[in-house]
Amino acid sequence: MSKPELFHSLHPRILTLSLILCMVIIPAKANEHHDLANGNAAIEVVIPFAIPAIFEVSPTASDATLVLRATTLITNSWFDAVAPYHPTAVGVYSNLGRRPANESEDNTNLNIALLYASYHALNSLFPHRNSDWRAMLESVGLDPENTSTDLTEPAGIGNSAGMALVAARENDGMNQLGNEGDRTYHRAPYADYTDYAPVNTAYELSDPSRWQPAMTGSNGLFKIQQFVTPQMRLTEPYSYHNPKRFRARPPVKSNVRNYGAYRQQADEVLQASASMTDEQKAKAELFDNKINSLGFSAVFAAFSQQLSLAEFIQYDFLTNMAAFDTAIAIWQEKERFDAVRPFSAIAYIYGDELVTAWGGPGQGTVYDLKGSEWTSYLPVADHPEYPSASASFCAAHAEASRLYLGSDQLGYVVPVPQGSSRIEPGFTPTEDLELVFPTWSDFEQNCSMSRFWSGVHFLSSLPAGERIGNRVAGYAYRFLDAKLKGE
Amino acid sequence: MSKPELFHSLHPRILTLSLILCMVIIPAKANEHHDLANGNAAIEVVIPFAIPAIFEVSPTASDATLVLRATTLITNSWFDAVAPYHPTAVGVYSNLGRRPANESEDNTNLNIALLYASYHALNSLFPHRNSDWRAMLESVGLDPENTSTDLTEPAGIGNSAGMALVAARENDGMNQLGNEGDRTYHRAPYADYTDYAPVNTAYELSDPSRWQPAMTGSNGLFKIQQFVTPQMRLTEPYSYHNPKRFRARPPVKSNVRNYGAYRQQADEVLQASASMTDEQKAKAELFDNKINSLGFSAVFAAFSQQLSLAEFIQYDFLTNMAAFDTAIAIWQEKERFDAVRPFSAIAYIYGDELVTAWGGPGQGTVYDLKGSEWTSYLPVADHPEYPSASASFCAAHAEASRLYLGSDQLGYVVPVPQGSSRIEPGFTPTEDLELVFPTWSDFEQNCSMSRFWSGVHFLSSLPAGERIGNRVAGYAYRFLDAKLKGE
Repeated sequence: MSKPELFHSLHPRILTLSLILCMVIIPAKANEHHDLANGNAAIEVVIPFAIPAIFEVSPTASDATLVLRATTLITNSWFDAVAPYHPTAVGVYSNLGRRPANESEDNTNLNIALLYASYHALNSLFPHRNSDWRAMLESVGLDPENTSTDLTEPAGIGNSAGMALVAARENDGMNQLGNEGDRTYHRAPYADYTDYAPVNTAYELSDPSRWQPAMTGSNGLFKIQQFVTPQMRLTEPYSYHNPKRFRARPPVKSNVRNYGAYRQQADEVLQASASMTDEQKAKAELFDNKINSLGFSAVFAAFSQQLSLAEFIQYDFLTNMAAFDTAIAIWQEKERFDAVRPFSAIAYIYGDELVTAWGGPGQGTVYDLKGSEWTSYLPVADHPEYPSASASFCAAHAEASRLYLGSDQLGYVVPVPQGSSRIEPGFTPTEDLELVFPTWSDFEQNCSMSRFWSGVHFLSSLPAGERIGNRVAGYAYRFLDAKLKGE
Repeated sequence: MSKPELFHSLHPRILTLSLILCMVIIPAKANEHHDLANGNAAIEVVIPFAIPAIFEVSPTASDATLVLRATTLITNSWFDAVAPYHPTAVGVYSNLGRRPANESEDNTNLNIALLYASYHALNSLFPHRNSDWRAMLESVGLDPENTSTDLTEPAGIGNSAGMALVAARENDGMNQLGNEGDRTYHRAPYADYTDYAPVNTAYELSDPSRWQPAMTGSNGLFKIQQFVTPQMRLTEPYSYHNPKRFRARPPVKSNVRNYGAYRQQADEVLQASASMTDEQKAKAELFDNKINSLGFSAVFAAFSQQLSLAEFIQYDFLTNMAAFDTAIAIWQEKERFDAVRPFSAIAYIYGDELVTAWGGPGQGTVYDLKGSEWTSYLPVADHPEYPSASASFCAAHAEASRLYLGSDQLGYVVPVPQGSSRIEPGFTPTEDLELVFPTWSDFEQNCSMSRFWSGVHFLSSLPAGERIGNRVAGYAYRFLDAKLKGE
């Protein structure tokens, strides 16, 4: 398969996150020049249009279950749409026959098929932005009114693949339509239907081992967390049948009956909080944003490895699907253990006693902070603590990358300008930084540790998350491989 | 005192809300032409700059305690700044002497004084927008670096009045600085320090008479309400010493032990929900927005009554202060009764039984809605139900207007274009409407009833709120009158 011109024209070493962002964001205004024959419409057309919709749902792209389901369905639509142009592949949700090899001598048909498939996936995920999805097709000269399902034409293949995906996924257990629980009116998409209720309230930690929703907000308008999408654990995975296959050991140190260990792991978090470096803060913010960390590292790797369009689609679907399937297993364990977060344990242990820790934006380390007022550097996420979801996603992503790309080499470089922190704007970092991840192992280890440095996780949560993520990646790779073989 | 040209140039009958909005919003870009000698810088300069800051805190301007405190402090700064130009008045927080009558032959000195006073109030309320407040002064040729406190000059008077106000109000009990409870780090401005905790959770109505926080949010990201600023009841009022003077009767129908009455008042809400008209929906949305209802009706009345600049300031401070002092008494009663909202009572009474009611945006009235899924037309506010805060604010505002303006006449007209609803965009109203409020009595009655039509209040909450609002307005008027007399 021919390599698109675009990939050849850029030397991998000069690719950095900001450059990728420019490439991904700018084409949205310049798609009239998109080259369907040689370009990569997934990266250059679909992603730029989809990103604003994802950020509308999750302004810091940190709401992983929702972000990952969207990116997985979009990349799945690409995979299914181009399967007929592969020598042996079948789609996950469709088997649309086989097209002769001469139809994929350039990227035209693959791009048209993936664009129409994306149109259906995006309309299903973000129906209120239908005009954006129409504009996306029109930007490259395609007609949104083309509803062909003719399997000898790329538009018909894309439409068929997209519609089959939507039909299979709209009721996959995530409650995308808000209709679970036999609900007809006032449907709330992605609402919990498992009746999860925390044992603690934001006002009282009645069980110090269990999760306590945090108070969030500012300027007088405060709200209390609700466990985000507890139904993720009941959602249909791609690459395995039952998430019970993936179990974590119980978080024994989070059990207050083991008080020595309970206090020791909280003290570790305090110590990390008191000694955070600018580089640790920058990494914590990078990995909190799943688009900038997971999403763009994959785009970066695709460029630097000079993947063809078809290869990019396989790889991007694989990494997203691996993280999505990981989330299902992790949410099962989060719900099962319902474990306490550091902020609750530190308040419980120290109360009005003074501790040494980060004192808030621009305050540095302070020595007279009440334990009950300790706050993590990153805002604490709205789900139980154990295992670490971010650690698991990075581990799934890195392992899937190693399996598909055949190497641990990465070379991802993220520039962090002075004062660009979103937590400490103007203050942090005190000088320009470059975050460098030579290998996928560096990427996953830094991702994992950043959840501890930033105070949202205890240490034992990290290996528990990593192990499940690494393992699920193997299943995801096997699943992709089977689909490529037409099984 | 001379009437500014602007007021004369407009015929009151042609003033509508949208026209006022244009006048108030557009000058922000055209202040270089502001006429300090004849214009009204409060309306034409300060309000346009302040509105974005208020909407940043409260996107629908429905968070009344926070919105009212901001508008009251701003209008208070105007009052105190122009007091020296009045024959007898003193400021609330400063007594800056008396200026000779020839210094207020036109509006120049009053405008300069109120602009500098506003600068201090706005910097205190919204410190992160300091560049806006500098731009506000610079837009009319004033220097933000002018820190004069020379009481023979308008800038010095404005600075002195503003600084005295800020010093008196920064620790007034609302916790503007987040320092209440001896808090040094991670200060959360306007956070509760009274340790309010609801007896019910969003998950379980353990006491059906008491307030239950609602689940809010969309697209999978849900959060649970926290009672907004419970400390409002401990905040320093202007016009009376102790809010215990203002008591409401207990909400006996909200006590589930009176089950017949409990059910009857819930059925009234259901019936209203099933029969809402487009006009009722439009009124509900108007009165939910405290800027468009309270704020602009006062600006409208000032225009139509051709108030001078000094009169406008007295009147606008009075109406805001009356509502602010009302909020303190109402919050005392809300906390004391901690009463259940209709959505909880209807779910408790009917559970899975089907009811007839509004079925959601664009659904109209439906006949097969589970009681547990009933939802009010307006999003339910984040505080206990009884008494109605909005009813009390409109009653305070209307009564203060009648007392100051000497008449019940109003003539306020609000055009509502087809499909402009924020709850049912595109659907409601089905044709262009005009909401007409011939008198302040019409204004307050419609405001009050709109809280019942829209499902956020039971009927008995309305008179309970109205009575406190009407009464506090009398105290507020007496307070203003004393300040005007120099007492």
